[in-house]
Amino acid sequence: MDLNSDLGEGFGQWTLGDDDALLDVVTSANVACGFHASDPSIMRRVCARAVGSGVAIGAQVGYRDLPGFGRRFIDIEPDALTADVLYQIGALEAFARVAGSRVRYVKPHGALYNAIVHHEEQAAAVVAAVVAYDRTLPVLGLPGSAWLRLAGDAGLRVVHEAFADRAYTPEGTLVSRRLPGAVLHDPDEIARRCVAMAAGEPIQDVEGGSLTLRPESICVHGDTPGAVGIARTVREALTAAGVALTPFAP
Amino acid sequence: MDLNSDLGEGFGQWTLGDDDALLDVVTSANVACGFHASDPSIMRRVCARAVGSGVAIGAQVGYRDLPGFGRRFIDIEPDALTADVLYQIGALEAFARVAGSRVRYVKPHGALYNAIVHHEEQAAAVVAAVVAYDRTLPVLGLPGSAWLRLAGDAGLRVVHEAFADRAYTPEGTLVSRRLPGAVLHDPDEIARRCVAMAAGEPIQDVEGGSLTLRPESICVHGDTPGAVGIARTVREALTAAGVALTPFAP
Amino acid sequence: MDLNSDLGEGFGQWTLGDDDALLDVVTSANVACGFHASDPSIMRRVCARAVGSGVAIGAQVGYRDLPGFGRRFIDIEPDALTADVLYQIGALEAFARVAGSRVRYVKPHGALYNAIVHHEEQAAAVVAAVVAYDRTLPVLGLPGSAWLRLAGDAGLRVVHEAFADRAYTPEGTLVSRRLPGAVLHDPDEIARRCVAMAAGEPIQDVEGGSLTLRPESICVHGDTPGAVGIARTVREALTAAGVALTPFAP
Amino acid sequence: MDLNSDLGEGFGQWTLGDDDALLDVVTSANVACGFHASDPSIMRRVCARAVGSGVAIGAQVGYRDLPGFGRRFIDIEPDALTADVLYQIGALEAFARVAGSRVRYVKPHGALYNAIVHHEEQAAAVVAAVVAYDRTLPVLGLPGSAWLRLAGDAGLRVVHEAFADRAYTPEGTLVSRRLPGAVLHDPDEIARRCVAMAAGEPIQDVEGGSLTLRPESICVHGDTPGAVGIARTVREALTAAGVALTPFAP
Repeated sequence: MDLNSDLGEGFGQWTLGDDDALLDVVTSANVACGFHASDPSIMRRVCARAVGSGVAIGAQVGYRDLPGFGRRFIDIEPDALTADVLYQIGALEAFARVAGSRVRYVKPHGALYNAIVHHEEQAAAVVAAVVAYDRTLPVLGLPGSAWLRLAGDAGLRVVHEAFADRAYTPEGTLVSRRLPGAVLHDPDEIARRCVAMAAGEPIQDVEGGSLTLRPESICVHGDTPGAVGIARTVREALTAAGVALTPFAP
Repeated sequence: MDLNSDLGEGFGQWTLGDDDALLDVVTSANVACGFHASDPSIMRRVCARAVGSGVAIGAQVGYRDLPGFGRRFIDIEPDALTADVLYQIGALEAFARVAGSRVRYVKPHGALYNAIVHHEEQAAAVVAAVVAYDRTLPVLGLPGSAWLRLAGDAGLRVVHEAFADRAYTPEGTLVSRRLPGAVLHDPDEIARRCVAMAAGEPIQDVEGGSLTLRPESICVHGDTPGAVGIARTVREALTAAGVALTPFAP
Repeated sequence: MDLNSDLGEGFGQWTLGDDDALLDVVTSANVACGFHASDPSIMRRVCARAVGSGVAIGAQVGYRDLPGFGRRFIDIEPDALTADVLYQIGALEAFARVAGSRVRYVKPHGALYNAIVHHEEQAAAVVAAVVAYDRTLPVLGLPGSAWLRLAGDAGLRVVHEAFADRAYTPEGTLVSRRLPGAVLHDPDEIARRCVAMAAGEPIQDVEGGSLTLRPESICVHGDTPGAVGIARTVREALTAAGVALTPFAP
Repeated sequence: MDLNSDLGEGFGQWTLGDDDALLDVVTSANVACGFHASDPSIMRRVCARAVGSGVAIGAQVGYRDLPGFGRRFIDIEPDALTADVLYQIGALEAFARVAGSRVRYVKPHGALYNAIVHHEEQAAAVVAAVVAYDRTLPVLGLPGSAWLRLAGDAGLRVVHEAFADRAYTPEGTLVSRRLPGAVLHDPDEIARRCVAMAAGEPIQDVEGGSLTLRPESICVHGDTPGAVGIARTVREALTAAGVALTPFAP
């Protein structure tokens, strides 16, 4: 099983999350590329530490939107989006390369992540960027999304992720954050669900039914109070259950 | 002989210079990387056209300063400058790669170009970026600059350039733009000087003496009225004189 | 009758349109405020020249989107949009004040202009900014838009504009730019329509019917080839027809 | 006595310092204006809370440098700097006005603060902005600086500040941060020095001599660990010593 998390999401003088702590927990680092967060100095440092910890580097690409942290949908033309994604992957590649590694996968961030669940043109635009850059790069995302469907159609390796701390509908989609119970907070419950998912066993959906997800990667968070503690608990529980933790794209 | 010029210096809705016309003239394109000018869409288009025209792609790296077009000295910490340069090279590399080529050289822009003639720490920081990224990348710049001296000390291939339209002192340095006669405007005179430089023959310095420059590349401009016409005249004169025009880093 | 146009839409080294020429044509200048275009130096210069020419200064507020020139819809939270609009009005006010005048009205730009034709929350957010800033500021926009309806409901003075060079449907809405005939190019035809509108007489709609618009302001453009010439022709035709040209908010 | 501190220095998703806590301590808030830090939403919130707490709002103007937090000297042309400062003051004025107040003073930030201690052209450029905007606005800064000298020459009210936690040379200048002992850390010692300064009594300079500063405002910090605690201790000590705390520009 792979554990992924967003890293390098500070900017200049500002910090966000605890990159160093998370790098001891995850196996794949979704490194922000400077469009929604991060800057060259942060990217260089995170890449060096990731390589030092055996953590795979992924390009966490987003809309060009530092003021909104990439959390606002932007109705950008598909060709411009493709170029923006290429730019971000290339910039991160420089730091991955200097650190002795490579960009190993691509995962969209925030509003872009959410948009390309359904927005066919933008999903195709991000796929086009990965295809143009390197057809062997896996893409990480939400099962059932247009993004992964189109990536698969284009011959890219598609990696499904599940969210450690999110409730799921009976159909296997995420419960909207606006609904009660959408986000789980109990570290032990979260860890149990992750162990179940890793074992191919069902978890409980939001209506009490049984739901089997088969993720190749589990996403943990690092930007909220207690988040790093939860991530550590997940890792320990998986390890205790005998689940080997390795990057999906080493 | 190589002819280089700055390209891709628009931004979003705004254009600057005539990239398409210049790509028919030069053999090396100093492509702006988004920090002082350019954006991903422009970079993609310029790289594609450069490769189609057999023009070598160089990273025209600058301070992070879109409002000032990279023409304002910024007292940035050397480590941050190194990271900023790496980011820019990597971003451009993505587009060069998608176009079927690679970044072939690095040339600083504007205030950074001027600063690292003398500013040892910033010069060393840019050199460190190139060394970390790819020790085989040549660097283009001003003879006598700290930038080329330190690059040479670090084992990088150093390429000297001369300016087609600038007057030189007897010592071979540029006459300050604030002095009369610093910039030449007569296309035929400019072309004659370029042919002389290509032949290893002397040109006249600003005081009327004889000065022999031995550039590997001549810089022509494209962002002022008549500039493209002058660049074309230079190319035609060199070709007529039997000078082969090829990229210094093909 | 008032003639309005977008001005100050350069950025740093980049120019767009011919501000000086337009300032001799229009009576109201929609001055970009630095979020989709313009910068402090441009704003200062345009405001000084507008005041010198007796042209009213309006705040042309937009999404924070220099790379996209404010032409991309951004799904920004209404409170943040209100704050962004306040910021822009205040920044422009400084230059209007230094030039000896004030900001006289507010007109949204680009994708924001289009969004708030229908987007109630964003329309309300822009209205809220004007109400909070100065309840006596008129707002300029498209008849029938949510923007003007909500502004009117809030007690703001609402000013209707018509577009000199756009075709209208029988219902008085703009023909989509994606349809043929949406944009008029013949200066004389455009001028005739403007004279008719100023006289309260009907123009021909896109289907050949008769349509009476009663704008308080006519929008002319300055950013395309020939645009300034068309704007001059409109002004001359209006003047020749005895229409007094004065700012709607002097 | 007045206590001033930098506020509103977050950006988008990122926070810095504890604005709410500081607003209970200081009498004057140097509010960042979006060029080195802050954004419209933050500025609106800080202004509203400042007015609610009886804290005077000052424009903390800086270089346009979010990536460097305004801590890097930028060799900007004086006219452009004047325009940049005007823009920032105007933007903040909108929020001060909406909150029911006004911008009460101007204090430069970071590298600009340091530059205009000696840089005559930039100092004059900032003075020119204040003079153009409102000749009645006081300016806050370092005694002995070109900034305050030129502001005084221009007829502006000049307000001297002292730093609560910094060591001074016998000449009354700040001990460089690169030297040991430049920054004081003991809350009680800091508070004692502030009480002495408020009483017009001497403090000890870095060489053990006696130095009398007569500041109208004392600057406390809020962006480092323990900073808010120190600021509270200073306020309590001043109050206990019978020093009335009021804004210098109410």
